[in-house]
Amino acid sequence: MSTFSCSLAKSRPRMVLFLTLWCSVTLSMMVGWSEAKARHLKWDVEYMYWSPDCEERVVMGINGQFPGPTIRAHVGDIIHVDLTNKLGTEGVVIHWHGIRQLGTPWADGTASISQCPINPGQTFTYRFVVDKAGTYFYHGHYGMQRSAGLYGSLIVDVPEGEHEPFHYDGEFNLLFSDWWHQSVHEQEVGLHSKPLRWIGEPQTLLMNGRGQYNCSLLPNFGNSSSTQCKFKGNEQCAPQVLRVLPNKTYRLRLASTTALASLNIAIGKHKMIVVEADGNYVQPFAVEDLDIYSGESYSVVIKTDQNPNQNYWISVGVRGRQPKTPPALTILNYKKIPSSKLPSISPPITPAWNDYNHSKSFTKSIFSLMGSPTPPASYDRRLLFLNTQNRIDGYIKWSINNVSFVFPPTPYLGSVKFGLKNVFDQSSPPEDFPASYDIMSPPANPNSNTGNGVYKIDYNTTVDIILQNANALAANTSEIHPWHLHGHDFWVLGYGEGKFTKGDEANFNLKNPPLRNTVVIFPYGWTALRFVADNPGAWPFHCHIEPHLHMGMGVVLSLAVDKVKGIPTDALACGHTADMFLKKKYLP
Amino acid sequence: MSTFSCSLAKSRPRMVLFLTLWCSVTLSMMVGWSEAKARHLKWDVEYMYWSPDCEERVVMGINGQFPGPTIRAHVGDIIHVDLTNKLGTEGVVIHWHGIRQLGTPWADGTASISQCPINPGQTFTYRFVVDKAGTYFYHGHYGMQRSAGLYGSLIVDVPEGEHEPFHYDGEFNLLFSDWWHQSVHEQEVGLHSKPLRWIGEPQTLLMNGRGQYNCSLLPNFGNSSSTQCKFKGNEQCAPQVLRVLPNKTYRLRLASTTALASLNIAIGKHKMIVVEADGNYVQPFAVEDLDIYSGESYSVVIKTDQNPNQNYWISVGVRGRQPKTPPALTILNYKKIPSSKLPSISPPITPAWNDYNHSKSFTKSIFSLMGSPTPPASYDRRLLFLNTQNRIDGYIKWSINNVSFVFPPTPYLGSVKFGLKNVFDQSSPPEDFPASYDIMSPPANPNSNTGNGVYKIDYNTTVDIILQNANALAANTSEIHPWHLHGHDFWVLGYGEGKFTKGDEANFNLKNPPLRNTVVIFPYGWTALRFVADNPGAWPFHCHIEPHLHMGMGVVLSLAVDKVKGIPTDALACGHTADMFLKKKYLP
Repeated sequence: MSTFSCSLAKSRPRMVLFLTLWCSVTLSMMVGWSEAKARHLKWDVEYMYWSPDCEERVVMGINGQFPGPTIRAHVGDIIHVDLTNKLGTEGVVIHWHGIRQLGTPWADGTASISQCPINPGQTFTYRFVVDKAGTYFYHGHYGMQRSAGLYGSLIVDVPEGEHEPFHYDGEFNLLFSDWWHQSVHEQEVGLHSKPLRWIGEPQTLLMNGRGQYNCSLLPNFGNSSSTQCKFKGNEQCAPQVLRVLPNKTYRLRLASTTALASLNIAIGKHKMIVVEADGNYVQPFAVEDLDIYSGESYSVVIKTDQNPNQNYWISVGVRGRQPKTPPALTILNYKKIPSSKLPSISPPITPAWNDYNHSKSFTKSIFSLMGSPTPPASYDRRLLFLNTQNRIDGYIKWSINNVSFVFPPTPYLGSVKFGLKNVFDQSSPPEDFPASYDIMSPPANPNSNTGNGVYKIDYNTTVDIILQNANALAANTSEIHPWHLHGHDFWVLGYGEGKFTKGDEANFNLKNPPLRNTVVIFPYGWTALRFVADNPGAWPFHCHIEPHLHMGMGVVLSLAVDKVKGIPTDALACGHTADMFLKKKYLP
Repeated sequence: MSTFSCSLAKSRPRMVLFLTLWCSVTLSMMVGWSEAKARHLKWDVEYMYWSPDCEERVVMGINGQFPGPTIRAHVGDIIHVDLTNKLGTEGVVIHWHGIRQLGTPWADGTASISQCPINPGQTFTYRFVVDKAGTYFYHGHYGMQRSAGLYGSLIVDVPEGEHEPFHYDGEFNLLFSDWWHQSVHEQEVGLHSKPLRWIGEPQTLLMNGRGQYNCSLLPNFGNSSSTQCKFKGNEQCAPQVLRVLPNKTYRLRLASTTALASLNIAIGKHKMIVVEADGNYVQPFAVEDLDIYSGESYSVVIKTDQNPNQNYWISVGVRGRQPKTPPALTILNYKKIPSSKLPSISPPITPAWNDYNHSKSFTKSIFSLMGSPTPPASYDRRLLFLNTQNRIDGYIKWSINNVSFVFPPTPYLGSVKFGLKNVFDQSSPPEDFPASYDIMSPPANPNSNTGNGVYKIDYNTTVDIILQNANALAANTSEIHPWHLHGHDFWVLGYGEGKFTKGDEANFNLKNPPLRNTVVIFPYGWTALRFVADNPGAWPFHCHIEPHLHMGMGVVLSLAVDKVKGIPTDALACGHTADMFLKKKYLP
């Protein structure tokens, strides 16, 4: 367990000095166990009519709310969620994104992997410890239920009486998502159709489930014919205004659960100091705007040191894909003046969608806070994952090393634990790809195969994964993919252009690589990450773009499942594990 | 086992003489067991894009077809359907409507009652004998999946070498349904919303899954601005033309799996002789038009004795609710001339929607074919079921004796068999309603309760059910409800106006009441039926209007479940029966 003493004093030049330093705190285990509380929540998941962007549609909500209720807990607390499925005919699960589920892999909330879907009318209890302070969120992990609106925030505070390694007077929590007017049921059918019916760009970007489709907060937005929104304030699509006092410091917790969109946030006239990424402290650095990919979270601090007689736009726009969606907007309101007063300065302009240098500059500026755990100096095993866009029987898919992942109906946690042979492919999927593969061109042979074999990982070994991007099916096209690992944080050792080569290792950052659970690969580039496989379970590692996962862009790691104890049997009461429990095929 | 000898010679005056008589056939057991075949079917249920009424939507199909494949079998055949759920997140079941499932109540395909929903990716095998010739169909019985398009025809022929009790040269099969442009997922949310969002009238009526929404087969249909349809013939919404030869006799098999609409069919210039209802032979009688309610099936025979140089419209329109849906049309085409030649005579006009006398006249003309089984002379138990429209917490529901049915997640077949106490209401629901209840007015106290207790029926007893209609919540409104019983046919003893009284028994038809599985109650009226409870199982009896069942309009009969043997355990691997099988709550 490493400690860090007044480490912020060594921070990088762009760091702003109003940060209050906080010293001598153990970073990796700030668990005030004596204070730990059990937090019991009873949630009903159901569809309901809602107007996230002022157009009424059906959303998946929790206890009548969209987004779902925010969970707020302290490090060490035990979260119990009795989740009742009130949907008509659909199963449901919830994944607690960023929570590593140390010792509770059955509570990870991944259908087909950690558990069976919870059937309509039934209740499943998620029980897990939140062991690390940070900004997290939760979301559906079955079909495209995340896209349907099944998400909410999960905030873990340091133990009572302890402090974060930075000061702030108040905080705001912004969960970003994207929203389509077409139902996810239709989207899903389109993704499995021949020819593919792609979901297209979202109609609206949402902040805390609120956006504006048929009106704009801006009186004259671009060339849009949208009229200005008229809000009384209690509309479901009215923006949440951030009301601040002058000359204070505020923490903004930012998280993205978008189905597709990579985002960029900026606040007029206010720099942001990045202090946390995915529940891990980072070496603070200042930015004018911040990229956030689906699956990521950040904390930034801002100082309200601007003219308090003005309001300021907060703007969130699309990066990485040619945007057809207007930016999401809200107001940073200095409380002295009414929030209805329009800012005198235009909203910040989102950087050009394909200005990847801007994106890379931001991403490569993220380092762990001094004193954070550092990676082992070497790896025991390296997996090279080439992602390609492919065709299977004329259907368009995404594949890893030419295998497009399909979910089996029996959860891996059970089928691996009990050694069931007929549930998933028993051969291990490829560990790398042909050295001759031309990543700069569309695949010479675009045909791929489906599969659902697992990468069996040895306990307590150090694993490197090199994510290798490539050209998609269309010429001159390579997309951004944010990859998310369950059950572990990983160190991001480096990013590079073109094909990864042995020589690239020399440039790995082993000194202060950031710990994260989600990392992006840039077009035609690679990303290297390392983790210590110390948390037994069945863990997916996948592109966090919902339709990409649906089209096969993911793998499953099977890690010392024999060491997993105490799986609730109702987590496995489906498929071949159910057959095993039942023993008899017919009742007498 | 009763026989009937040349019974058609005694048929009613309107009977047409071209019927070929068929004598000395046993009616209730025409099972050529020696010829019995096992028919193995492999079905995948999935959503797909389709244009049932020329507008593209998502439908639930089977093996890429909508409607699903027609099953055609002979009496005594064993049907095996390996049903694989290829939906994304929804469970599925299929009910074989009209098949009594003698000895196989676990194959009845009712979620929450006979089995657990089949989860995505899993396969369940339905195995049952078709023991009685007739016109049947199958459909989803979970949520509103029937409305989504999960249905198809099931035709059972007499054993090879045997003959129906009427002659025909050819046959056609017409399965009617109604179709909405709003998805069933949205419809379902609307039905559970406060205030209620009623699904409204269907956009289109379909025959064998084909209708026309944005065009009409009629060049000048009413005041509609629809243009005439231009079909090459291979469109998914092109009508199926009935091609006939002159001076032949054809059997038309008619079945209705509508979600809502009561229908009426007529064929220009061609009388129909009704010969079968719900898989039971009836005393033949001729009609100009025929009412068919959801859940019913008929066979009629027609003679193609009209001018063979003309084509004739077949028209299907809405009864019983103020129609906002144009009639479904197709062509009876005398093969000598092209089917594209428009009939010179306008389509038959559907009787006025509220001409209930016309409806009653038809319904009361149905009698069993002479020689059919007759009911026991008396009953052992009588249940009076008052149906009312109610409010529960401001939600609008339908109730039976003031109980609005809600489906429990654990199937009754398991929970009753194993005596599980915590699955459904252990007290029996009311057997009747207060004698003072005023059926002619909106309910004085519209509040109701939800419940899911069962009516426990003793084995081999004779049960009478009096269905009593009443005024709905709105003044001067009483609706038609077709009630469908699973597991048994029943005799329809009579219909009456107003409230059923003891004296009405005297008019019961015990001589030749028709055997059916579905029967209608008319507005402000009652219907009396009788059955012998000889088929152990858990059997729903419910309004076959899909949203009405969804709003609570049904009951469950529990009948000698202890005698049920051989239930496949995977039918019960959910809810509390799964818990029971699992035994342990946590794995070591």
